[in-house]
This record gives sequence, C-alpha cells and structure tokens, in this order.
Amino acid sequence: MFGYMGKILRINLTKETIKEEIFNEKIARFYIGGVGLCTKILFEEVKPGIDPLGPENKLIFASGPLNGLFPCKYVVAAKSPLTGIFGMALASGPFASEIKYAGYDAIILEGRAEEPKYLWISDDEIELKRATHIWGKTTNETEKIIKEEVKHPAARVASIGPAGEKLVKIACIINDLVRAAGRTGLGAVMGSKNLKAIAIKGKKKIQIAREIEFKKLWEKYITIFKEKPHWASVYGTTSGIELYSRERGCLPTKNFTSGVFEGVHNITGETFLYKWTISRSSCPKCPVRCWGTIEIRKGKHIDYYKGPRPEYESIAALGSCCLNDDIESIVLANDACNKYGIDTISTGVIIAFIMECYEKGLITRKDTDNLELSWGNSKVILQIIERISQKDGFGALLSEGVKKIAEKIGGESKDFAVHVKGLELPMHEPRGQKGMGLAYATSPRGACHNRGRGEVKEAIPELGINKEFVEKTNPFNIWGKAKILKISQDWRAVEDSLVICYFANLSISLIVDLFNAATGFDMSINELMKCGERIFNLQRVFNVREGITRKEDILPKRIEEPLRGGYTDGVSISKYEINSMLDEYYNERGWNKYTGIPTENKLRELDLNEAIIELKNLGKLI
Amino acid sequence: MFGYMGKILRINLTKETIKEEIFNEKIARFYIGGVGLCTKILFEEVKPGIDPLGPENKLIFASGPLNGLFPCKYVVAAKSPLTGIFGMALASGPFASEIKYAGYDAIILEGRAEEPKYLWISDDEIELKRATHIWGKTTNETEKIIKEEVKHPAARVASIGPAGEKLVKIACIINDLVRAAGRTGLGAVMGSKNLKAIAIKGKKKIQIAREIEFKKLWEKYITIFKEKPHWASVYGTTSGIELYSRERGCLPTKNFTSGVFEGVHNITGETFLYKWTISRSSCPKCPVRCWGTIEIRKGKHIDYYKGPRPEYESIAALGSCCLNDDIESIVLANDACNKYGIDTISTGVIIAFIMECYEKGLITRKDTDNLELSWGNSKVILQIIERISQKDGFGALLSEGVKKIAEKIGGESKDFAVHVKGLELPMHEPRGQKGMGLAYATSPRGACHNRGRGEVKEAIPELGINKEFVEKTNPFNIWGKAKILKISQDWRAVEDSLVICYFANLSISLIVDLFNAATGFDMSINELMKCGERIFNLQRVFNVREGITRKEDILPKRIEEPLRGGYTDGVSISKYEINSMLDEYYNERGWNKYTGIPTENKLRELDLNEAIIELKNLGKLI
Repeated sequence: MFGYMGKILRINLTKETIKEEIFNEKIARFYIGGVGLCTKILFEEVKPGIDPLGPENKLIFASGPLNGLFPCKYVVAAKSPLTGIFGMALASGPFASEIKYAGYDAIILEGRAEEPKYLWISDDEIELKRATHIWGKTTNETEKIIKEEVKHPAARVASIGPAGEKLVKIACIINDLVRAAGRTGLGAVMGSKNLKAIAIKGKKKIQIAREIEFKKLWEKYITIFKEKPHWASVYGTTSGIELYSRERGCLPTKNFTSGVFEGVHNITGETFLYKWTISRSSCPKCPVRCWGTIEIRKGKHIDYYKGPRPEYESIAALGSCCLNDDIESIVLANDACNKYGIDTISTGVIIAFIMECYEKGLITRKDTDNLELSWGNSKVILQIIERISQKDGFGALLSEGVKKIAEKIGGESKDFAVHVKGLELPMHEPRGQKGMGLAYATSPRGACHNRGRGEVKEAIPELGINKEFVEKTNPFNIWGKAKILKISQDWRAVEDSLVICYFANLSISLIVDLFNAATGFDMSINELMKCGERIFNLQRVFNVREGITRKEDILPKRIEEPLRGGYTDGVSISKYEINSMLDEYYNERGWNKYTGIPTENKLRELDLNEAIIELKNLGKLI
Repeated sequence: MFGYMGKILRINLTKETIKEEIFNEKIARFYIGGVGLCTKILFEEVKPGIDPLGPENKLIFASGPLNGLFPCKYVVAAKSPLTGIFGMALASGPFASEIKYAGYDAIILEGRAEEPKYLWISDDEIELKRATHIWGKTTNETEKIIKEEVKHPAARVASIGPAGEKLVKIACIINDLVRAAGRTGLGAVMGSKNLKAIAIKGKKKIQIAREIEFKKLWEKYITIFKEKPHWASVYGTTSGIELYSRERGCLPTKNFTSGVFEGVHNITGETFLYKWTISRSSCPKCPVRCWGTIEIRKGKHIDYYKGPRPEYESIAALGSCCLNDDIESIVLANDACNKYGIDTISTGVIIAFIMECYEKGLITRKDTDNLELSWGNSKVILQIIERISQKDGFGALLSEGVKKIAEKIGGESKDFAVHVKGLELPMHEPRGQKGMGLAYATSPRGACHNRGRGEVKEAIPELGINKEFVEKTNPFNIWGKAKILKISQDWRAVEDSLVICYFANLSISLIVDLFNAATGFDMSINELMKCGERIFNLQRVFNVREGITRKEDILPKRIEEPLRGGYTDGVSISKYEINSMLDEYYNERGWNKYTGIPTENKLRELDLNEAIIELKNLGKLI
C-alpha cells in the first residue's frame, strides 16, 4: 500500500505477545487512518461499560497516510478515564512519524503488564523492556534514560510521568520532551497498563504512489507558504493571547467569569519573544516553525531556565484563568506539568475552580493542606501541580477533574465547574464566539476546540461555505453555526485521520491532492468528507453506547452567566441559544433531535451497519 | 440675521393675539434653531406637571438656519400627551421651509381657541380663521378645503384629522397630504387647542451671509451626491424591509417576538417598485428623491388607488409587526392613518399588542366589539384604525397607547407592551443591534431610533470615531455602544436643530461649512457638538422635572426574551447588558449614575445655569 505501511502492531501486555496485522486498502478508504482507524478499532474492540483503567481498555497510537511526507501529528486514543467516553489526544513532534518509519500505521496496546515496562521498537527488534527502575521518574528523565539504554540518541520517546503512573485522571503522554498528547487522561490509561514509555527508531521507507506529482505538489505548497507569512510563525501560538483578551474578549479569565484579563500585557507573546525566545523550531517537514525555545537568566524567581516556550493554551490556563500574571510562574508551571505528565488545560481550570471554591468559602485551609488558594497566587499554583501529579493530600481530590471535585464539594460549586462531559473547557471563551459553545457541547471527547469549530471568518468554497454565508455570520450570534460546525467537524475528522497539523494546512484542495498522490487513490473532497462524517458518527455511536444522549450535550452553567468587562461584557449563551443551535445541529447531522442519537438512515447512508446492529441490540435505535 | 429670519411668531389662541418676537444671534449660537430652539422655549415656558392637553401646554413649529437652502424638515414640539415628557416630531415636505418663507424661525401656539380655528399666514396677513366647517374632516379633505378658501393652491398646509380633534394620544400632524410629524401624539395637543390646521404661503427671501461660498459648497454637495447613488434613491425607505428581515434579523415581527418575517417577500421594496411605483419625488432642493407615488389598478382588494408609497416604518408596523403580509391592506392602512391623522408606528404596535392579548385570552370578543383579532387579520387592522381614530367603542381604550392599555388589561400584558416611557418602539429590533436598545432607553422622547444611534458601521473621523473603534464594535455586543450613542445623540441634536434631513447629510464637514456660509458664523464641529450636547441635556432636564430618572431608562420586558428564528434567533438584551450600557452611558454623559440626572458640573460646563437653579429648587440636584 502506498502512503500507508499496511500493518498494525498489536501488543498484548498481559500475555507479552506481539502480533502484526494487516491494515488493508478497504479500511483505509473507509477510515483514512489516524483517528479514523482508532475509532474503528475502539468501536469494535472496546465494549461499553468497561473500566477505562482496567485491562479491557485499549490504547492505540496511530499515524496517517501523510505522516513522514508532510507536517503531521500522531493520535493516541482509548476510552477516557476522565470522561468515560471516547478519548483521544493528538501531539506533534518527531515521534509522530517515527511510528511509520518503524513500519506501522498504528500500535494497539491491550491488557496490563505485570510490572512496569516500556516498549522498544526498532527495525531490528520489538521488545517489552523492564521499567521498574524508571517508574516514578519524570518524563524528561525517562526519555534520557531510555535513549541511553537502547543506545539510540535519536530514538523517539513518548512516556508518562508520575501522574500517569498514579492514574491521575488528567495525566497526559509526553513525547520528544515537550510535546503533549494532553487531553482526556490517556496518560492514566498508559499507567494502568504499567507501560511507562514507547521508544521507537525506524528506518523503513514510505512508498509514494505518484512521486513526481507529489514532489510538484509539495513545491506548490512551499510556494503558497512563502507568499503569505503564517500567523504562528513568529510568536507561535502565544500570538493569540493579547488579541484574544483585548480585541475579542475571549481569553478565559478568573475561571471563565471574564473574557478580558487586566494583566494580559505581562503574559503576551511579545513578552516571550523579546525577552526570552532564543530559537524557533518545528516538526519534521514543517515550514511554519511554531515552536520556541526560551532562556531566562536571572529572572524574578528563576535564576536560569532553558526550555520550551509555553503554548497559548497553557499560558491562558495557568495564567489568566487563575488570574495569574506572573509570567515566570507560568513558565515553571508549564514545565512542571510536562515533567509530571499532566494536561495544562485541565490543570489550570481545576486550579481556577478550586480558587473560586476557596473564595466562596466552600472549602477552607482545613481542606487545602493549609494552602492559601487566593486568586493569582502563583506560588500555590506550583504547589498544587505537584500535589495533583503525586495525588498528594489535597491533590488526590483535585486529580479527578472539576466534574468529580464539584460532586464531592457539592453546593453551588457544580455551577462553576467548567467542563463538558467531564472534560475541562479549553482556553477559547465560547460566549464571545457562540459557535464554539456548540462545538464544546457536541465534540466527541467533551469540551474541545479542535474537533471542528462553529465559527468561520473566511469563505471555504471547497467545503461549500461561501462569502455571502460568512458575511452573514457573527461571533455573537447563533445563526448558521450548526451548519458551519457540522462541515468543520467532518473536515477536522479527515485532518485528524490524515493526521496533518492544522497549522500546516494552507489549502484544502492541495491537501486532498497530496493525499491522492501519496496513496495513489483518487478520492474527491466529497468522498473524504463522507469518511469524516462516518468517523464522526462512529465516535458518536461509541459515546451513545456509553450512555451519551442530547442531555449530555450541554454547556456548563457558568456559560449562561454574562461575562464581565471589555469587549464581551454582558455576553452569555442562554439555554435557549444552545438549545436552538443543538436543534439545528442534530438536523444538519441527521440525528434524532430528541435523543441526539444518529438515525438508522444516517448510519446506513454512511455504511455503518455494525453500528445499527449494536444500537438496536442496546435498544437505542427505535 | 443671515440664514435665520430673526423672528418668532407667537399666537395666543385663547386671547386671539398675534405677536412677533425677536430671535437673536446669541440664542442662535447657543441653540442653533429647530429642536434646539423648541427645547429652550419649552423648558422656559412649560412648567412641570401641567396637563399636556390643557391650555398651559405650548405647541411649537420650528425650522432651522438651513431651511429653504438645503433639504430640510421642520420640527413640532410640546409636552407629549402620550408620554408626559418632552414631545417632538419632525416631518419633511414643502411645508417645512414655508415657515421661513413667511418670515419666521418658529411659531409658538399657546392657550386654547374657543371654537375650532385654523391659522392662515401669508405675506399679507396672519389670521385665525373659523374651522367649525372642517372639524371632523380628514387631513386630505382639510388641506383641499383650506387651499380653496385662502385662494392659494400652492399654500402649504399642516393639519390634524379626526384623531387629533378627539385627543387620541397617538394622533399626528400631517403636512403636504402625505408627510407626518408622527410621534408622541402632538396631533392631540393641536386638537386640544382647537387648532385644525396651519396654512402658510410666504415669499420672504432668506439672506445668505456668504453667497458665493455657499453656492460653491452646494455644487460640491451635488458632486458628492452624484459620485455615489444614495441608498434611499431607488426604493426609498422601503429598501430596508427585506434586508432587515433576511440579512439582519431585525424586522420587528409578531409584536417583537421575532426579527424575521416569513411573509417578507410579499411586502418588500421590490414589490412596490416593480408592481406599482409610478413616480419618485422629493422635498424642495433634495437630490435623493426618496418619495414614491404608487398606483394600484385592479388589485386583490383595491380597484384603484393612487397615493403615497408607504415608508419603511409604516410597512413594518402595519405589516410584519402584526404578522400581516397582505401588501394592499398595508397601503390602505397607511393611507387611513394619514387621513385620520394617527402615527403608523404606534398604531401598528398597538394592534400587534392587542392581537397578542387576544391570542393569550387576556381579552375576548366581548371586549373587542366582536372583532376577531387573529394575527395578520388584515381586514380587522383597517377596522381598528378607524375605531382608534374615532375613539369608537373598543378604539377608545386602544387610543391611549400600549402602556396605558396594558395598565387597564393587566396581568402579564405589561410584559409584552413594547414601549419606553410610553412611546411604542419603532421598527428597528434592538436585540440584533444592542446599541439601538441603549438609544431607545435614553432617547428624550421615549423609544426612538432617530435621536442618535448606538451602532456605527463606518468611521466618522469628524466626530472622533475611528476605523479601529468601528471594527471592534459588533451589533450583538454592548461594547463601545455608550460612547457611540453619546456622540451620535449630540450630533443628531445638531441636525435636528439645523433642521436638515438625515438622508441628505452626505458629509458632516460640508454641513458645517454650509451652515457657516449661510449664517456668517464660523463655528467649528466641536462648537456645534457642544450646542448639541447642551440641547440634549436641556431636554433631559425637562424630563427630569417631569419625574424621569434612571429607573425610567429601561427597555420593555419583551426585549429580555430571546428572539425566535433566523439570523437573530436566540438573541436578547439582558438586564445586565442594558444596565452595563447605561452605567457607561451616564459616565460618558457626565450624569449621575444612580439617578440618571445631569450633574451640576456638566450643566455648568454647558452654560445651563437656569437648569441648575431649577433642579436645585426641585431638590433634584444634590
């Protein structure tokens, strides 16, 4: 198979068996790869109701047909311990394509190792190696030790930190030292399997079907890139912070009570760039170069630091969301999250939530191990990160995510526990972009800004969104958002299956051409969009099996309250608004409006016959 | 005095005395003319608490320094019987400048004639003539009879119909057959004075200070006009109907429950233009030509009709607001309102309101003289108009306006009585343009779209509104609206004092230049804006004297409910939003935030020392 490696690696950790399976063209044409492939495997192999942290759960690492050929990410998927539904996370970095260089489109991990192990894959061997000596180590320590052990300094490593080992529900997987497959707690799934890390060094060649055509398309791609500087090229994702606060009023601040942060000038991209950034770098093949390395010498608290420039989401979550404008503390907090292996977004929202509980007197110093949880207390933020990661004292409760914490604290706290389906909201205030609210309510993994967006600023003629339509839409309005979101979610499912980086997608038609030239397929945008819709619907069916209905497609109560201050002062998303958008959305999707379950007709149209049978057996299709 | 006539005519109807008074340059430089002059006179001569329909009220007709030289309107002002506060209405047409041709900047009518009279002013005579024989006649009959009597076919006439005579609270004054000084019930004030009409024929010359300069500026004006077709030139104001419904979701529909009207295609400007419009015309000197005359031959209900093309406000009020898409019925209803002399906006909102009461069972056929008040019942709309105008049966209650009707019907009806300070909302849905909501809440005459707007689409550098600011504003948001509205209200007070037509204002700086060339003054935009602010503040003081405070600067409850359908589906203006805008607004205005009363500092800054003394005497300035 061109573009693909045609093989899936299946490791049973309980039995310590290693199997290669075929990934055939029929499946590739139906599910593309990446997220699509993960969805199909999880749907077929992970039965509803199983414990996400038990051996029945499966953890899948997958790449797509463009990995190794184009700026790509990898995807990791499993049933999520944080949300209890479809869990997935993507990350960039060299590890992403190393899976393919080792000869695989995906790696399925099942069962549970008796004692801590790490998986080592090279062209010569596949081995489950003992990891008892690195158990407890941070991710950066782990990566260093493993590289030395396997004697491959260029081996690519993805690992969990102490948080994943301890089954912290917001634990993530860190690859290439600084990249995080952050959301939905998949680090805990890896920890539950006693798997500390995966290290890969491969040299397999990726076959391209139409090499000359592919090369020409790549040149065209680089030409397009050169014509217009990419927004993320200079400041990386940090460029959004000031803009989001001052111009759009959409920077989550003080646990989503405001979209405007007074201290924003202290934490902007400019601050990073001019003060500290010493180099920019990128994933393999990527011209964007959105990564930054910073160096701090004799700072306010920091004597010396050299490491990654935090990304937008982390700065907002650990900064404005906690009313913290101490930029050095944000750098340190981000670094600590990476090393312990916890998701910066969920961490920031949990801290903001608990600060609000503290302010409101719902908890006191007796509950907080005597920590003073006042807003913006940057010192305490660092202490909490450590406690969450180690499930230490007060941190054990916090490690469960805001949904569960609010259930335990009770009272009015559930009104400001800012999550959807258990996943904490990311750093894009939905009230100032109401289509984002609909996206949060309907994303397959809970509150997510990356599974399609309900807002559009420019026409996308390839996807049928024209200029007139765009001009009629408005971020403060609900009009047209269901239509945009449905299209955007389906296209994003295609991107996540390819598994290209969104920043690197400069032209949809060019991406389609690159895909066809690499694989030798000749699929149209519409055919790919049908794959996207199929994948999205199958994720929904997975969630429906776990009990998800329209009732769970809701926004946190806080979002019904008006924002305070700045450009979005007074803006909310009312129950009526979200319900109106949902009505339209289910209609666009061909889902039952009352249950939020895909209809039999829709599933049949997408050739998802097994899904029909399953839902019928469960009595969920009437 | 150049530009001005320098004289005010004062008619005491009780004593039948006629006096000429001086209008001097000092007053002109302080209050400009038009609305500014009316405001000053009403403030000084109409004491708080008087009965608007008693002889102590004064009715003033005024023109401004550009009347006769530029496309202008006239203004009529008094204490309003509908709202009990500052009442004013503007209308265009040849009558507007005829006041000046007769030699006056304003005409003050005071007292009450013993029997019906009309005022006849020509260069040769000023006479109060008997009107008992035309009492009861419609406005068009009145105009015809008077022109014959005074033997001047080109005399300009403003008159009231049966509604004004019968003190219907929404009675208007009609001039030139088809132009209406519509709002705040000033036709009833005229009726209360037993004055049926004013007829004028004058030949006085208006002196221009710098004639050559003025001529050049006028040529420049015409050049600007020719460069860009005016939006109102083809369809007149009817061009907005379809746009407002489909593109902006701001066409008041079904008593302000929706901003989108399903039947809009039946009542659009296109329908008028292509089916019926036979000619376009204009006020004297105006190149815009926004008026249309239509002719209907063998229509659905109408055998033959020739008359004015209804304006936007009337079509929406009598159409979409009542869920009526029968266009011929709208033409007839508009014609009936003009002839009986009632305001089409208030009429439409009253009918929509009572239809909703009927739908909700708050009133039944027993209350409605057996009329079937179902939504869109076009036949019944025509019957109600007649009953309101004649205070006939059920119409007597309706003639009081929605505020009073709701007080009488009681129950939940006050929640959907759509007015501010007693004045029914005009046809610009505020939820889809929240700055309009603030304008409604703070306009001196109650809900009004023409006393400044809280929305801006293009930069107005002359008034300090730049492109960056405009780009940050958004119709669904409250950001920046207070700032825009304050500037816009002050400028509009200038325009209403000049008394130029807004449609004809193609350039602010050119208007200022024309004013200076005409009067020989040399006032800057800033000086004129200070006059505007002074006038606006004095109107506020007038209203404060009558009991108005921040508490009355509210929006109807309906506006807090979400709109249903289309582009604005789900949009509301919450209490929080309006209060936030108000806080900012009082701050911009330099008014007390808690009382909504201008501060002493602000009044002193505007040289309104009498206002300070008055408010102190009333204990309203602390």
